[in-house]
Amino acid sequence: MAPTKKRVDSGELKTFVIDLLSAYDVNIDHAKTMADVFCWANLRGVDSHGVARVARYIELFDKGDANRTPVIVDHALRPALNMIDADFAPGAVAMTRGVDLVVDLAKTQGVGWVQVKNTVHAGAMGYYVERLANAGMVGIVMLAGMPNMAYPGARPAAVATSPFAVGVPAKDSAPFLLDMATATIALGKIKQYKIRGEALPDNAAVTADGVPTTDASLAKMPLPLGGMKGAGMSLAFELLTSVLSGVPVVSPIHAKADGAKRHRQNAVIIAVDPAAFGDTEAFQMAVTETLNSIRGLTPVSPDETIGVPGDRGGAIAKTRANTGIPLPEATLNELASLAEAKGMNTIKTLD
Amino acid sequence: MAPTKKRVDSGELKTFVIDLLSAYDVNIDHAKTMADVFCWANLRGVDSHGVARVARYIELFDKGDANRTPVIVDHALRPALNMIDADFAPGAVAMTRGVDLVVDLAKTQGVGWVQVKNTVHAGAMGYYVERLANAGMVGIVMLAGMPNMAYPGARPAAVATSPFAVGVPAKDSAPFLLDMATATIALGKIKQYKIRGEALPDNAAVTADGVPTTDASLAKMPLPLGGMKGAGMSLAFELLTSVLSGVPVVSPIHAKADGAKRHRQNAVIIAVDPAAFGDTEAFQMAVTETLNSIRGLTPVSPDETIGVPGDRGGAIAKTRANTGIPLPEATLNELASLAEAKGMNTIKTLD
Repeated sequence: MAPTKKRVDSGELKTFVIDLLSAYDVNIDHAKTMADVFCWANLRGVDSHGVARVARYIELFDKGDANRTPVIVDHALRPALNMIDADFAPGAVAMTRGVDLVVDLAKTQGVGWVQVKNTVHAGAMGYYVERLANAGMVGIVMLAGMPNMAYPGARPAAVATSPFAVGVPAKDSAPFLLDMATATIALGKIKQYKIRGEALPDNAAVTADGVPTTDASLAKMPLPLGGMKGAGMSLAFELLTSVLSGVPVVSPIHAKADGAKRHRQNAVIIAVDPAAFGDTEAFQMAVTETLNSIRGLTPVSPDETIGVPGDRGGAIAKTRANTGIPLPEATLNELASLAEAKGMNTIKTLD
Repeated sequence: MAPTKKRVDSGELKTFVIDLLSAYDVNIDHAKTMADVFCWANLRGVDSHGVARVARYIELFDKGDANRTPVIVDHALRPALNMIDADFAPGAVAMTRGVDLVVDLAKTQGVGWVQVKNTVHAGAMGYYVERLANAGMVGIVMLAGMPNMAYPGARPAAVATSPFAVGVPAKDSAPFLLDMATATIALGKIKQYKIRGEALPDNAAVTADGVPTTDASLAKMPLPLGGMKGAGMSLAFELLTSVLSGVPVVSPIHAKADGAKRHRQNAVIIAVDPAAFGDTEAFQMAVTETLNSIRGLTPVSPDETIGVPGDRGGAIAKTRANTGIPLPEATLNELASLAEAKGMNTIKTLD
């Protein structure tokens, strides 16, 4: 059974989240950035990375996993290379800073590469590559975190469902926005199958013993996309982000090292400046032509719509901007409790 | 039925391929580089990208798709960014040049990004990321080419089975080497299922009408890895390589433009220098620790070996370096015919 949902206005939701985070002692700039990233995800239908995260984030702050008053330091390592030590700042804050920095590097050096180390749950990667594309850049983001995904042949959670994201600006069109996890199925989706009592697709998830299962109530973690392909990508991202930054996540977990289980994430943000190749208008036009050439392919069945990465989220965002963002009652109740505890009114629903 | 194979010595194979390509008017430096890339693939068990390509390459030269006397030009666009116009040089030649150039950029700028445009079949991407790792770099390669893969909802071949490769140097260990296509199954594997008369796995390939099939004799092309994920990666690589370089491949094909069907490939090679982060020994040690932490995980079943990307190819290479490279009779016959036509002896088999 699908959970009951009620709609809220997207603008009001953002204001409410800013006020709520502020009431929980998050400084106003950080609260604004976090609200922007959460609401972007909700607007585009990526609800798992939306305002349902607010309560989780307050827990992260209270536990000391996330830092309300981080001292974020940029290390300019080489002309095109920078490393941000985020001091456990919220992912939205650290990653947005990384994006803005990498754009500056790319403008002068042609390409920029920024490591973001020691951050926490960074949310929807699409937000950051869209920000890169909106700055005219071709952007790539890779992120790694706590092991929560199976690995071919192994019993425990071995690597993370680490995302890979690419943004490319287009002419007279929303940017190309790929934002994909390296897992076959999202953890949140497994939960939804369980709630609905439905069988999972084959080879999507495994039990606690690492054995494939279609029983959502026994499913402990997702399998990697395409076996060694998704597992290899995830492991590559751990090497490119955590290990290259000097803060490995995977090996301390498996060595059961002290403090290894503290939640953290590390990322790399890469940007290349199309202006270095010549006419940016012509480039963006060629991007649009390529995207349109795919959208215009003959469909397998006449009623099929062929989309490119970014289209679906863009369509949802248009609808939700007009008619509101549907939030599950559980999320609304959680937000209401948080508001009440600080003597605030909760968000008004449209239904 | 598996085809009959006979073994050849790996060193002799390389010498033979150099001599053979030279006899077909390929200049000696290019012949050496091509032989190196082909034999590396055979040594590691990636036989689809090995010496079976020699005959195909001679066809590409004779058709004028590949260029025996290319004028390769490096465009230094910005301090960390270069674009090589390969003038349809063999992929091995253009990509190796790109790798060596990106290493120089990364050493001074921290990161280097090199576009390689207008090349032809570049072979096993693992070769190039291994070369980057052997130079101490963390390397990423993405490549795009002619559409030969299905796309969710579309009937014709829409995008290419474009590869993604990552190489990372490790201490006292072979490098981490991820080299994956964005397809569920390789075209060559579909052929093998057809030869053996076996059913394909579910959701691996489609018919000419874009409908999923397990009948290998009806299978026309592979499905992308994970639906929109693999399709999105492939499309992203077309944008990052072909379109950014000003030589789109996908959109002219779908527009049925003149000359659109000429075989070509475009790539991007990225390197980052771990020395910019500090002690490279410590970094490589941390890479090895991470890889070993995965290799040492509790297996699902006791006889299971848990490997990381690069392990399987490395093990095959050890065996084949000692006992020879098994080549199918069809490949041996083709090489013998090519040799005979130039009055050369063919390669000696060990069986």
